[in-house]
Amino acid sequence: MELSHIEHIGIAVKNIDEAIKYYEGVLGLKCYAIEEVKDQKVKTAFFKVGQTKIELLESTDPEGPIGKFIEKKGEGIHHLAFKVNDLQGALDKAAEKGVRLIDSKPRKGAEGLNIAFLHPKSTHGVLTEFCEEQK
Amino acid sequence: MELSHIEHIGIAVKNIDEAIKYYEGVLGLKCYAIEEVKDQKVKTAFFKVGQTKIELLESTDPEGPIGKFIEKKGEGIHHLAFKVNDLQGALDKAAEKGVRLIDSKPRKGAEGLNIAFLHPKSTHGVLTEFCEEQK
Repeated sequence: MELSHIEHIGIAVKNIDEAIKYYEGVLGLKCYAIEEVKDQKVKTAFFKVGQTKIELLESTDPEGPIGKFIEKKGEGIHHLAFKVNDLQGALDKAAEKGVRLIDSKPRKGAEGLNIAFLHPKSTHGVLTEFCEEQK
Repeated sequence: MELSHIEHIGIAVKNIDEAIKYYEGVLGLKCYAIEEVKDQKVKTAFFKVGQTKIELLESTDPEGPIGKFIEKKGEGIHHLAFKVNDLQGALDKAAEKGVRLIDSKPRKGAEGLNIAFLHPKSTHGVLTEFCEEQK
């Protein structure tokens, strides 16, 4: 498979407004979009630095995946997303090599991308996402 | 301050040889350097994807920072490093804004960069590094 770059880094935060203040006020990045992904029970805020987006994630429900992550591990980096050209092909190749998939088929993510996750048990602890542009 | 891109992402792994097999064999990236940083009690392996390096970190000592991280949190993403042009200036600006610094002065890191870390208590849980080329 061919990974072109890191599309985004997902960061779990308790309070997205406070975190936006840090990313804008201290790091000097600019929040260009805020989006709620109801499916994932999160509110997201996006920044761009070079080729990569930073996606802040605040849970809208303590039972959602980000709520549970923060309860277990605290705030911090939640996942790493690589851009691929052929998402289904990348998933099939990973599965062939014995990687456990969370999503065996692409689904819709934030920002109109098709996305799928690999299980961190198969990726040395990194929740890994592949993203492709919708065709 | 001006962050140009994500210079690297540091990932703590238990066994760097096994992790290299995953990054090369499954993700198709190429390990281009292996380096021991005695100071930090780690062995590192580097890959490049787009503008960003992936830096795998295996502890060479259970009492080192990566050994302790894995004991507490397990394998996973350890830190996020941004490229800056003026490292001392970036540190001074962060401190002015109330950010707690781990390093108030630049020190030498892997790959001949000057580096410094911000404390995750001040960065919403993300151990954050700034890097600049040595002048």
